[in-house]
Amino acid sequence: SVNPDLASERQTASFSVEKLTALLDGGTEQTQIRRAVVEAIESDPVFSRENQYFQTQNERYEAAVRKAVHLQKKMHEMGWTENGPEFKYIYRALSGDVAFLLHRVFMRSISVLGSDKQVAKWIPLASQHKLIGSYAQTELGHGTYLQGLETTALFDTATQEFILNTPKISAMKWWPGDMGRSATHTVVFAQLYIHGKCYGIHPFIVQIRSLQDHSLCPGITAGDIGPKMNFEHVDNGYLLLKNVRIPRENMLSKFCEVRPDGTYVRQGSQKINYFTMTTVRISLISDEVLTPLMKACTIAIRYSVVRRQSKLKPGEQEAKILDYQTQQEKLLPQLAAAYAFHFINDYLQELFNRGYREIQRKNFDMLPELHALSSGFKAVITQHCTAGVEICLRACGGHGYSLLSGLPSLYTKILASCIYEGENTILLLQTARFLIKCFMAASAGQPVPPSVTYLAAVKHGKCPAKNKLDFLSSDIYTEAYQHVAVRLISSTAAKLQDLIQSGVKKHDAWNQCTVQLVKASKAHCHYIAVKNFAETVEKLETKAGIQKIMKHLCDLFALHGIFSNTGAFLHDGYTSAAQMDMVTASYLDLLAVIRKDAVPLVDAFDFTDKSLNSALGSYDGQVYQRLYEWAQKSPTNQMSPAYERYLKPLLHNTLSKL
Amino acid sequence: SVNPDLASERQTASFSVEKLTALLDGGTEQTQIRRAVVEAIESDPVFSRENQYFQTQNERYEAAVRKAVHLQKKMHEMGWTENGPEFKYIYRALSGDVAFLLHRVFMRSISVLGSDKQVAKWIPLASQHKLIGSYAQTELGHGTYLQGLETTALFDTATQEFILNTPKISAMKWWPGDMGRSATHTVVFAQLYIHGKCYGIHPFIVQIRSLQDHSLCPGITAGDIGPKMNFEHVDNGYLLLKNVRIPRENMLSKFCEVRPDGTYVRQGSQKINYFTMTTVRISLISDEVLTPLMKACTIAIRYSVVRRQSKLKPGEQEAKILDYQTQQEKLLPQLAAAYAFHFINDYLQELFNRGYREIQRKNFDMLPELHALSSGFKAVITQHCTAGVEICLRACGGHGYSLLSGLPSLYTKILASCIYEGENTILLLQTARFLIKCFMAASAGQPVPPSVTYLAAVKHGKCPAKNKLDFLSSDIYTEAYQHVAVRLISSTAAKLQDLIQSGVKKHDAWNQCTVQLVKASKAHCHYIAVKNFAETVEKLETKAGIQKIMKHLCDLFALHGIFSNTGAFLHDGYTSAAQMDMVTASYLDLLAVIRKDAVPLVDAFDFTDKSLNSALGSYDGQVYQRLYEWAQKSPTNQMSPAYERYLKPLLHNTLSKL
Repeated sequence: SVNPDLASERQTASFSVEKLTALLDGGTEQTQIRRAVVEAIESDPVFSRENQYFQTQNERYEAAVRKAVHLQKKMHEMGWTENGPEFKYIYRALSGDVAFLLHRVFMRSISVLGSDKQVAKWIPLASQHKLIGSYAQTELGHGTYLQGLETTALFDTATQEFILNTPKISAMKWWPGDMGRSATHTVVFAQLYIHGKCYGIHPFIVQIRSLQDHSLCPGITAGDIGPKMNFEHVDNGYLLLKNVRIPRENMLSKFCEVRPDGTYVRQGSQKINYFTMTTVRISLISDEVLTPLMKACTIAIRYSVVRRQSKLKPGEQEAKILDYQTQQEKLLPQLAAAYAFHFINDYLQELFNRGYREIQRKNFDMLPELHALSSGFKAVITQHCTAGVEICLRACGGHGYSLLSGLPSLYTKILASCIYEGENTILLLQTARFLIKCFMAASAGQPVPPSVTYLAAVKHGKCPAKNKLDFLSSDIYTEAYQHVAVRLISSTAAKLQDLIQSGVKKHDAWNQCTVQLVKASKAHCHYIAVKNFAETVEKLETKAGIQKIMKHLCDLFALHGIFSNTGAFLHDGYTSAAQMDMVTASYLDLLAVIRKDAVPLVDAFDFTDKSLNSALGSYDGQVYQRLYEWAQKSPTNQMSPAYERYLKPLLHNTLSKL
Repeated sequence: SVNPDLASERQTASFSVEKLTALLDGGTEQTQIRRAVVEAIESDPVFSRENQYFQTQNERYEAAVRKAVHLQKKMHEMGWTENGPEFKYIYRALSGDVAFLLHRVFMRSISVLGSDKQVAKWIPLASQHKLIGSYAQTELGHGTYLQGLETTALFDTATQEFILNTPKISAMKWWPGDMGRSATHTVVFAQLYIHGKCYGIHPFIVQIRSLQDHSLCPGITAGDIGPKMNFEHVDNGYLLLKNVRIPRENMLSKFCEVRPDGTYVRQGSQKINYFTMTTVRISLISDEVLTPLMKACTIAIRYSVVRRQSKLKPGEQEAKILDYQTQQEKLLPQLAAAYAFHFINDYLQELFNRGYREIQRKNFDMLPELHALSSGFKAVITQHCTAGVEICLRACGGHGYSLLSGLPSLYTKILASCIYEGENTILLLQTARFLIKCFMAASAGQPVPPSVTYLAAVKHGKCPAKNKLDFLSSDIYTEAYQHVAVRLISSTAAKLQDLIQSGVKKHDAWNQCTVQLVKASKAHCHYIAVKNFAETVEKLETKAGIQKIMKHLCDLFALHGIFSNTGAFLHDGYTSAAQMDMVTASYLDLLAVIRKDAVPLVDAFDFTDKSLNSALGSYDGQVYQRLYEWAQKSPTNQMSPAYERYLKPLLHNTLSKL
């Protein structure tokens, strides 16, 4: 039975939840496919995550391997293939709690970087799991800056082998997933040396464990890097190489080849490599970043209409905590952001698909824009969603702090997304470099990519809003965001030029502007996100109340951004203080409006109880029962040796004899 | 041997690290006592935290009990007493990793709330650990709002007993520390009923486990609430009471008594109770909040001069990451905040001591101010320091995400401080209530407490700064902070009055202003913190470079606050956009100045390697060796059954037969 406080929230929905779910999925057909996958996965006990919060790192790893192996069987049974429509829902249905994800990266890197011959040899072996692959790039002392990697691969013409070494402790490979305990092979990135000359970083296939008994191969030292904040199920590993010899054929050689005599030959364009990074950054947004935020919103909002605390009105029942303005102000902007980023993800996917088609036609023109947008949005979305999940956690008070709420593990996992696949600050600076370049080009009247044409048309007007309702016009706020982005980009470009003209070296000048460059990149992405949300809303069908509620969310997303960054909008007087008070008023009004639909808006995300894995967030809202039943199963409710060893002697007063 | 990149940072310190340590400790004598305690604790293997990151919740609990029992012996051996000068350093030296902290709360509540007779009976038993106490207030469905607690205590005149019940699942006691597995007794807060009439919440001593065999007493259901984000060493518990009978004498009766015939007698003032909450909130700031931030800064800053990544200048060695402006902008404001809050903690302690003396003279006049400041600062400092620790963690990239860095556990633990002892939003609203009241009083010409007299003197000037150096004047920025606090408090007071005058009910009007009230409270605390830091700097002796570097930190703390909240300062034109650009310039300049002393500034916190328990933060900066050595000891480097069960069959291709 559904908790009546939760049930009542659903009766007054202003829109069709089912229709919104279909919109999010991209059509009712997609919803059906997704639900079928979820049903198949969740009804299979091998994939259960029920005891996850009670398990040790070792137990989590074992379960993840078990699931990965079972998944092969399941896919076969269900007729799911890697190219089928179901595939993208499998990982989501498993909540990522499965091993051998790096095996897929191993395969992809061979497909992209390997010669036809290499692909023909390794891909079938990997597909059939006759080996387990990993991807060894990051080192103890080197992450972002690939040129700095210290692992070496010396070509020995005599034996036609590469000799691989990690010459210093900082060169040790560190972090690769699936490598700590599972992998038999890995792609190692190393500095290629031929006849004493360094040719830079190249990828090599290296076997690290025996296919017979899994023992480490000669010259290999490898193991698990130990406990992390999350990802207990992944065996992130370390790898030391000492004179490990591999055949010449193991250097992935689609773009570069070493001939038997040691001649180095570069062939084809490596531009495609940048595209691979772009692919990864875009693909992680949905599963690794948006889904956790949507889950956190679902948990926190359902809990906030079940939890009652203090009285709003004297003499009445204690109030649902979602009725407090402060609670609305914590949660509803996160909900709006989840929708905003869902739509920006669609935008990026579309852009990416277009770029992919162009690249297949050997047209690389879109690459810089795609790289800038994927870098910037990876950083902005991971940052925003991580903060959002933390806010949801804290908004649930003590119960949010229990692992059983599901929120701590969502937080500790999403946090990693700010670091992996490009550290966020560095990504934002890459976007900034693109923006500054485009701004200079635009100022000089040269053409620039579509997403930055607005830089060419710098306007010096003022915000025309006359009253608080004007700020519910998407033109008004989109214009304001655009103005701020232009101002931050142009003023930082000016500072940069001033510094250089005053004699500061280029690299120093850049460094002295980086705090402001980061701000400029964020402002650009924020503008694009607001604009895209507003445009998406306009295109929605007006039926079933969907457009209306999405418009409210778009307004909230935009006004929350202004309310939280008032300085950026006030700085040059584009927005006046009186207008800022209108923004505040409209923003606070919106909270009360959206609050009414808060539960239907998270219901539309369509998470099952099993996928939420939360005592606070279940569809029926039976929070307290679930916490109690669940806690009783905790291993901490078994007898502890501490009683006989310490407590009993203490209580029976042997202490005085100590 | 110290990593040369770290060693070089120490050679150029602009001040005496040892003198700064003494300043932080409150004198060289205190430093000596602290170091002696740390040495005694850390040289004792029973207190080791070495394996902490590898342990399960059960193992952590057992270790904490072992340490608590051993601590009794240690204190006896060392001649340490609860009233001695060493006592305050013990908990810090243990990093809080010890059981029976709630036993102390149990004792304190009896001392404060019990009659002389009750104190005489229970305190000796508790002191000698003939029982282990806990403190059962929070319920599954009730935290902040004590009046809403549902546990009942019915007085039965026939038997002269109270009958205790948790009538609904939401009434179940939930969270009390030491209760899940250890406690034999607890203080239960319950609604007192006599002859069918409710007299509100009262405290009762209830035995929950047998002193003989630790089995649960009749009518008691109790256990551990299971895994949390941290605090694995604490057995937070649940407790169900079903017709549990306790003697009339077990109601703590210093202030309220139930006579044998059921007559209810209230005696004395309960105001002192508010003072107890104030005590707890102030006392937690140092150990639970500041120490973690100082540790996080130490770890992240030492790591940031050892870690080299990318090139600042083409052709040169890779740069220390602390040389990047963006890294400075992440870490140095956290360092400045750690100092700012250390000094505000001194300020609160002094205020508290003065208040305590007054209360002993039966003068309760200081209570409202003390309550407002302790609530506001508890919220502001926990919030700020939690965010600061997270920034430090993220600033260390991947290695910060490893538990071995020590940062994840600092974060997951400090996060709880935002929730316990008063949820932060609620505390800020309590401060706001005080501020609004004082503002109204001040406006009416009535006297107000010292910390809010500034509300009486609202000035309408403009910031007089003419160039960026003017913003290094503490008068200039303190005045700006004051202006913002007054503006936010007065404008919210006006909105509140407008709403009420327009017919909105008082409680609705309050709710509609809460988002802004929270901002006003924060602005007030921020102003006090800046003012106090500036005043502290002025009083420092000018020798040994201490005053100079503290002045830089004070400036940074103040300017970072403006830079991060530009809107608040720009809103009414008090600060112009041109002035804001000066703030930015001064702020960025300061980063480069303080960067030079960053390592000495964290060295002054004087944490030992054992207390940091971090592979990244050790005094010698041998980061990579330590990560590698430590990881090898992880239980994840033992053989996993996953190989024989899943990997071997997969690799040997039995999969195809599945």
